[in-house]
Amino acid sequence: MTGPPRRDAGRPRGATVVSAVLAAVRAELAETGFEGLSVERVARRAEVNKTSVYRRWPTREALVAAAMEGLLEEFGDSPDTGSLRGDLLALAAPIADLAARPDGVALLRAALATTARGDLGGAALQRAGDGHSASSLAERARARGEWRPGVDPQQAIFTLVGAIIHRTLLEQAGPTGEWLEGLVDIVHRGIRADP
Amino acid sequence: MTGPPRRDAGRPRGATVVSAVLAAVRAELAETGFEGLSVERVARRAEVNKTSVYRRWPTREALVAAAMEGLLEEFGDSPDTGSLRGDLLALAAPIADLAARPDGVALLRAALATTARGDLGGAALQRAGDGHSASSLAERARARGEWRPGVDPQQAIFTLVGAIIHRTLLEQAGPTGEWLEGLVDIVHRGIRADP
Repeated sequence: MTGPPRRDAGRPRGATVVSAVLAAVRAELAETGFEGLSVERVARRAEVNKTSVYRRWPTREALVAAAMEGLLEEFGDSPDTGSLRGDLLALAAPIADLAARPDGVALLRAALATTARGDLGGAALQRAGDGHSASSLAERARARGEWRPGVDPQQAIFTLVGAIIHRTLLEQAGPTGEWLEGLVDIVHRGIRADP
Repeated sequence: MTGPPRRDAGRPRGATVVSAVLAAVRAELAETGFEGLSVERVARRAEVNKTSVYRRWPTREALVAAAMEGLLEEFGDSPDTGSLRGDLLALAAPIADLAARPDGVALLRAALATTARGDLGGAALQRAGDGHSASSLAERARARGEWRPGVDPQQAIFTLVGAIIHRTLLEQAGPTGEWLEGLVDIVHRGIRADP
């Protein structure tokens, strides 16, 4: 039995809704910034029912947090390269690549703006250098005798991330290439065990 | 000859206007954030004519930049403590103290928000670790043989500043005490000459 065509026929559904909405959030942020972001505009851009968006992400802060988490999932765990310096570069490079993209800058700026309004974007962003990656990287370095005793793994990784944020948002320069190598040198020498 | 009393008798004038306005900007930002900031509210809080504020600072971005510069002037040049580690701590401590204050956090957040709108707040903030302080600190360290050749003084200082920003805005934790000592250890070891 065939009923009348649904009004939302052809619209994305399920997992497709999620990725369409999160892509729309990044695109909207890059165009208008956090101040111009609205659930309505995101829904229109993603070609999704407004109510579907509101049901899952009731506020624009929730949209920013979800977009940030979506990007961070792309990073996954940092690979074991066999050396502390290599592991630091492997962890920092995808964060720097993201921060070098216009939608990455916009998302970073929005996440910083939303930390004032309930920590959603900030909490998601914080996971970039958080728990899992930082501690497994430190464990591997300790096993090789490369980690200076007393250094907090989170502090080490957040120093990398903070410098990338400063570079991108305040210096407004690219956080890649020689600049990134220089940063990894500073942090690597800063946290390695004395020779 | 005494005329009729002026309508703005008792209102701050000249240098007093500047400090009253900048104090009002900091207080307004701490209360309402950048989105709630307006020239009108600042003028009312500072008890200054709205037109006096508009004449000097035509936009709220200009107000944020001026407030940031006012605070940065308090820092001045970093003192010569006789060692690279001491100089780094002396440079970072007042920035960390500022970032630990509610009006400092609000101002930092506003400066980051305004970098999207013409770099005013960001340009002012950037001076925190800029030119003068960074290069004189590096010159002194070079003269003592403490500076690792090839390290960019700005990159070294901005790594300190970026980590303080990450700590304050994303971790939302105090950037002082043991945490600051740990950060200075990382950056000091990261940029010092090999023993």
